[in-house]
Amino acid sequence: MTTQYDIIVIGGGPGGYVAAIRAAQLGLKTAVVEREHLGGICLNWGCIPTKALLRSAEIYHYMSHAKDYGLVAEKIGFDAAAIVQRSRGVSGRLNGGIGMLMKKNKIDVIWGEASIAKPGEVVVSEPKKPAVQPQTPPPKGTLGAGTYQAKHIIVATGARPRALPGIEPDGKLIWTYFEAMKPEAMPKSILVMGSGAIGIEFASFYRTMGAEVTVVEVLPQILPVEDAEIAAHARKRFEKQGIKILTGAKVTKVAKGANSITATIDDGKATQEITAERLISAVGVVGNIENLGLEKLGVKIDRGTVVTDGSGRTNVPGIYAIGDVAGPPMLAHKAEHEGVICVETIKGLHTHPMDKLKIPGCTYCHPQIASVGLTEAKAKEQGIEVRIGRFPFVGNGKAIALGEPEGLVKTIFDKKTGQLLGAHLVGAEVTELIQGFVIAMNLETTEEELIHAVFPHPTLSETMHESVLDAYGRVIHI
Amino acid sequence: MTTQYDIIVIGGGPGGYVAAIRAAQLGLKTAVVEREHLGGICLNWGCIPTKALLRSAEIYHYMSHAKDYGLVAEKIGFDAAAIVQRSRGVSGRLNGGIGMLMKKNKIDVIWGEASIAKPGEVVVSEPKKPAVQPQTPPPKGTLGAGTYQAKHIIVATGARPRALPGIEPDGKLIWTYFEAMKPEAMPKSILVMGSGAIGIEFASFYRTMGAEVTVVEVLPQILPVEDAEIAAHARKRFEKQGIKILTGAKVTKVAKGANSITATIDDGKATQEITAERLISAVGVVGNIENLGLEKLGVKIDRGTVVTDGSGRTNVPGIYAIGDVAGPPMLAHKAEHEGVICVETIKGLHTHPMDKLKIPGCTYCHPQIASVGLTEAKAKEQGIEVRIGRFPFVGNGKAIALGEPEGLVKTIFDKKTGQLLGAHLVGAEVTELIQGFVIAMNLETTEEELIHAVFPHPTLSETMHESVLDAYGRVIHI
Repeated sequence: MTTQYDIIVIGGGPGGYVAAIRAAQLGLKTAVVEREHLGGICLNWGCIPTKALLRSAEIYHYMSHAKDYGLVAEKIGFDAAAIVQRSRGVSGRLNGGIGMLMKKNKIDVIWGEASIAKPGEVVVSEPKKPAVQPQTPPPKGTLGAGTYQAKHIIVATGARPRALPGIEPDGKLIWTYFEAMKPEAMPKSILVMGSGAIGIEFASFYRTMGAEVTVVEVLPQILPVEDAEIAAHARKRFEKQGIKILTGAKVTKVAKGANSITATIDDGKATQEITAERLISAVGVVGNIENLGLEKLGVKIDRGTVVTDGSGRTNVPGIYAIGDVAGPPMLAHKAEHEGVICVETIKGLHTHPMDKLKIPGCTYCHPQIASVGLTEAKAKEQGIEVRIGRFPFVGNGKAIALGEPEGLVKTIFDKKTGQLLGAHLVGAEVTELIQGFVIAMNLETTEEELIHAVFPHPTLSETMHESVLDAYGRVIHI
Repeated sequence: MTTQYDIIVIGGGPGGYVAAIRAAQLGLKTAVVEREHLGGICLNWGCIPTKALLRSAEIYHYMSHAKDYGLVAEKIGFDAAAIVQRSRGVSGRLNGGIGMLMKKNKIDVIWGEASIAKPGEVVVSEPKKPAVQPQTPPPKGTLGAGTYQAKHIIVATGARPRALPGIEPDGKLIWTYFEAMKPEAMPKSILVMGSGAIGIEFASFYRTMGAEVTVVEVLPQILPVEDAEIAAHARKRFEKQGIKILTGAKVTKVAKGANSITATIDDGKATQEITAERLISAVGVVGNIENLGLEKLGVKIDRGTVVTDGSGRTNVPGIYAIGDVAGPPMLAHKAEHEGVICVETIKGLHTHPMDKLKIPGCTYCHPQIASVGLTEAKAKEQGIEVRIGRFPFVGNGKAIALGEPEGLVKTIFDKKTGQLLGAHLVGAEVTELIQGFVIAMNLETTEEELIHAVFPHPTLSETMHESVLDAYGRVIHI
């Protein structure tokens, strides 16, 4: 006897489990297939445990500067094992929470490796020994290997770290985020390859904890997807913290020692060698498109990810894809939103298709970085005449009171219509601020409405208002 | 030779100086009269220096819980004088900044006490010895006593602490915010009279620094302007921290000792005596309407504040009022916004009149509280059928990672139209989150647009989204 599901979701990460919950809310009989851990990389080995590590680093930073706040403490230090244990505990707790959500929503969890035999049929086999991440125990009542029927199959298998030839992660000297998340001891020196969100967050974490950190980025700018001005501001601050940054530079060779690596770095003009205890490879991720039977079914793939319309449909009826496996931006909140849209589309509801321009991006280093919409360069590339507003944190009373006077809010408007096209922030708490601009962009807000909004005083969020005012020659506090 | 001004603003607080800057931007010849300190109470003795104190308290709290984050420190303590000095330094720096803004915008500063002789004429006399707050030095180039002409006069004189008969602040045992802001040593016990934002912020500060704190509130609820559910949540957490809270209770008598007070407190059923080193009187503020000549001019006053239309006009042509002296909500950002509207109205620009329902309110205690719009009770009083959404911080991954799992976001929608009527938050960083709801309310947003907005993961701001989802039976993470 097999259950006939309305939807089977392959992959229990943030895209997959949220899609499943939304499906259950809409009365659809739903199952999720997972092979390693509910909550996916995001919850178990990504967004969440790094935020826990960064929280410890943040508080360590405050403690190290206690005197600045009129406070005193002696023998300030850390217990690397306890920091990692706290981070793992946070992931463990939330992982258990997803199991409970599945149960509460009457979603079946099927434990194993899935492949799509044909539209409507998913074959689940025993999970293989995980390549890297250990499995968490499946929740009680989990189903096992077998053949399962579903009217609609959603592929939400996520992505994994990209490995560069010759610099493949070995779990010992060359790390991915997985090992970087649970160091046995704090390394004294780290070389970070790649300056996207993951690379920069680890660079920030390890630097705060006292390591010598070098970041190597092949592009001319760190944080390559961010606005150039914001990235430059962040770079200056990272360098002030003692992080060494090499842009337009490539790791061409890595030689391994007993407890260190020596990397040869070429910036096009010269080569240099840098030795560090560990190398973190953070050069992007690739979609998990393999072993799902997608090729046989004729599902269209482009540059390593599944091609979908704005609602998660692939070219094969009954097969959908969401999240990282369906292409960039590879962000948990994009996956969640795509999952909801996909399921609502299956249910026949009226949905707004995905608008990738309105998806914010956040990097939780110190200082934080957050953005949504077009960068100045992108807007100009599109031939849009823009008005730009800027406001520095140093003009904000709360920033001064917090002891966080460095930061910048940049807003970009369409000169003709006044529409907000993009917002780019660097500074304290900007990952929590950006949502105001996201809401504004969703409502196709113009400068006039933002100017009229009353931002509470004293808050960092006043910098958002002032940046808008600045774009229109009305800034107050500079 | 006297300068003929377009606008003279009486009072250099946040309402006054912002109005002056906006006037200068619009090409109006402007002066500000100030008798104590540019930036007003807010910058010198209110919002800003308290945020500096609370920042020290926040970091002291983290340090005291270092172990929770995998960190170690010994002999954790504080230097009360250094904490106060830091706070005074923050105010001093910003005060200097306002002087520079006046200069940059070519706004004259006139130092002294102003009264309005007749529409169009302001007489400034030497400043009296300040009753409480010491003067900061006036900026260079400041004008002095004399008679000044202006086409338009804006009264922005702010407010001062209300004193209850028999419990008048004496600067030694009975404090207002002024003394509470600069304790010579940390008192071991404090009685706080009044549980509005000011009372609760000081209660939170002193409790975190180790004092025994009792809060007495005459109304049945602490934080009386906040939604009852949010206030109850906050109360529970304050009590867990060891703050003693007495509601529906009144201080009927205060006896002074050598270094303590003993207050008699009547809750309608019984009386009790509580002894504490200091009493902080935080029972509201009263508008500074005296000695300005307003009565003689026939300017309409109601319940101690100047009556204005939504654009700052009083009943007397040429006389305007903004900020605290023009009535509640007595908040700096309301004053600033009112100042801008007032000046733009004078200039003849098209303005939106003040909509007091869209002005957020923040309390920076631990946990923070922030709100905008109607409370549930107010909405029901108005006969509106509502839909309510709630989301607890415990369902939010970032909150868990931060170690801040307690908090609540409550959203209130009009059941018929879906319009967002109010949002009420308690928890970490909510004073920075509320602006998203302010923007939404300004755009008369409905639930549909908020549901469609993609909030970044992992952030506390996701709780805002989930609260909206909850109101419509779509919540994911509980």
